[in-house]
Amino acid sequence: MNEGDDEPLLLTPGPLTTSRTVRNAMLRDWGSRDPAFIDMTARVRGRIADLAHAAETHVCVPIQGSGTFAVEATIGTVVPRDGKILVLINGEYGRRIAHIAEIIGRAHVVLETDEDVPPTAEAVAAALAEDPSITHVVLVHCETTSGILNPLEEIAEVVARAKRFLIVDAMSSFAILPIDARRVRFAALAASSNKGIEGTPGLGFAIVANDVIGSCAGNAPSLSLDLADQHRGFEANGQWRFTPPTHVVAALDRALDELAEEGGIEARFARYRANCDILVEGMRAMGFRTFLSDNLQAPTIVTFHMPRDPKWDFGRFYGLMRERGFIIYPGKLTRKDSFRIGCMGRLSATDMRRALDAVRSSLSAMGLAHQVSPHRE
Amino acid sequence: MNEGDDEPLLLTPGPLTTSRTVRNAMLRDWGSRDPAFIDMTARVRGRIADLAHAAETHVCVPIQGSGTFAVEATIGTVVPRDGKILVLINGEYGRRIAHIAEIIGRAHVVLETDEDVPPTAEAVAAALAEDPSITHVVLVHCETTSGILNPLEEIAEVVARAKRFLIVDAMSSFAILPIDARRVRFAALAASSNKGIEGTPGLGFAIVANDVIGSCAGNAPSLSLDLADQHRGFEANGQWRFTPPTHVVAALDRALDELAEEGGIEARFARYRANCDILVEGMRAMGFRTFLSDNLQAPTIVTFHMPRDPKWDFGRFYGLMRERGFIIYPGKLTRKDSFRIGCMGRLSATDMRRALDAVRSSLSAMGLAHQVSPHRE
Repeated sequence: MNEGDDEPLLLTPGPLTTSRTVRNAMLRDWGSRDPAFIDMTARVRGRIADLAHAAETHVCVPIQGSGTFAVEATIGTVVPRDGKILVLINGEYGRRIAHIAEIIGRAHVVLETDEDVPPTAEAVAAALAEDPSITHVVLVHCETTSGILNPLEEIAEVVARAKRFLIVDAMSSFAILPIDARRVRFAALAASSNKGIEGTPGLGFAIVANDVIGSCAGNAPSLSLDLADQHRGFEANGQWRFTPPTHVVAALDRALDELAEEGGIEARFARYRANCDILVEGMRAMGFRTFLSDNLQAPTIVTFHMPRDPKWDFGRFYGLMRERGFIIYPGKLTRKDSFRIGCMGRLSATDMRRALDAVRSSLSAMGLAHQVSPHRE
Repeated sequence: MNEGDDEPLLLTPGPLTTSRTVRNAMLRDWGSRDPAFIDMTARVRGRIADLAHAAETHVCVPIQGSGTFAVEATIGTVVPRDGKILVLINGEYGRRIAHIAEIIGRAHVVLETDEDVPPTAEAVAAALAEDPSITHVVLVHCETTSGILNPLEEIAEVVARAKRFLIVDAMSSFAILPIDARRVRFAALAASSNKGIEGTPGLGFAIVANDVIGSCAGNAPSLSLDLADQHRGFEANGQWRFTPPTHVVAALDRALDELAEEGGIEARFARYRANCDILVEGMRAMGFRTFLSDNLQAPTIVTFHMPRDPKWDFGRFYGLMRERGFIIYPGKLTRKDSFRIGCMGRLSATDMRRALDAVRSSLSAMGLAHQVSPHRE
């Protein structure tokens, strides 16, 4: 809500808008090896594991860098050098995971569906039955490419039944959608400081099963991105191996306070759900058409087909929205011609209604008179 | 100087104390793909290259994470898979580089000297003459372990003469000691946002020669830590491939302003030099003995031998200094029994004098009556 600022709100897949109080938590310097910071690190790690009801069964291992750093660290650490990964792909982030597997030298196969089609548990079960050499399955819970929600629980069930390990990229779902480690079996889950938790960017983390983290020393083809070594450091003396982004850790600690104050994941989900509904309804009233059917849409980011009107110019639309105080995602990620507007981060229903006003007035400035003609295939 | 705060000052090897105005720069959210942030990224990259007089010959490639992430990214990207590294070691950070080479699978040999002895150009020349398969030499310019300054210019000279590539870990020297790419030939140099530049931690960067960055695609055994791919992203559209720590980038931009306002590297060196002299003189007056002779001491961090008095207790000393508002490094890194006090970051001569007062009063509280008996070997 960036109260009192004239800076724009971020309606993007990330970085997201944060609260002023979260940003204020960055105003102090911390000695990273001082007991006060060691306590803060332990508190953050514990609270993140608690969000997944995983404190008894898993450990939270934060890692410096972006979400992709955390995903690469998780795959490189958890999958042994002779392992084989089944990557479930229906968007850019799934494709990126296959790319990571290739670069770090992990055998992998892919199961790809269209960007508006989730993988099914049946197809995963069949792929695992067909290839006994697959050791790990990687699923992107919510594909930030389109905003599609993939069926985590059903897939976790078939992966567990086939006695393989599941790795979840929960970047755009963690702290938004409930994930309960007591019911959903996963070896590791990766997410970041700056999505559902609404901290500032600069940190990712993995939640790794105790038996897995205890058995994966030496797997990682990197020192910096070795979660087993990072975990060993925390266990040894509570300290980060290498300089942490102390201010970002402090903001994350504060963001976790604010998540609890808001009422936890349930309340956050409800706010994002309301944001998403306001956005979709308002955009549809202007003639825009969503890429996904409503039952597949996670309340995180919404993909719209590009209008077909000759007066529509996405670059101009971006600039008009920017002038009106809203930053939307400036590029396309899906393979179909589309654009995206986010509804996560520190955004209220009022912010979303103001964003719709800005869309209306931007259309008007482009001579589109409040109504577009959506592209039909 | 943390004006107006009661928070402690950091007399450590990092994270360092930053100015309040640098931290204030983190109070705003940025869209990472928005033109305003693209401009900021370009400005930061250009100014960092300028600090090394390298704008014509090199590019600055920032990378998310700590300094070690930047060092690993630099080695993994710049050294081809069939390359061979000579690592010059006289402390923990040199040892870490050899460890990185081992983990990422780069052949390497080491030339190790005692922690208070710099490598000589002659020894490097001899090692290169003896083993023609060595392609790259890695030098830690200022070893943060002890604070020792290694002879960059002389070693760069013999590496260039032997037609090998030099990689410099300039973590604790960049923006403190002058490094002039027009005179000192290096393929790549790695440093971070939070040392001499006095930004906040969360970012490293490499300054890579144009012909090197253009020829090292596909070398890196990592997606996240691939500087060639990161550079390709900046060249393509000015954007970071993966979410950058936007607030840390903004703080770095502000820190670069403040470095220029202070009078550039020369003025910063003079301040750190004065800090170091005040610290060393004051500590010696209390009976402490430095690990390094003065001619080898970089004005960054000073290592002192542990006193031999039975009343001396380092853990208690750390706590007493902490109560008095100063955080020193709580562990030892050198192989000899020692402790360290830093003099870099946003610290003034007054801060150093206050730190000495705190040392005196801490000694007094330990019953050491303002004078210790330094350990003699």
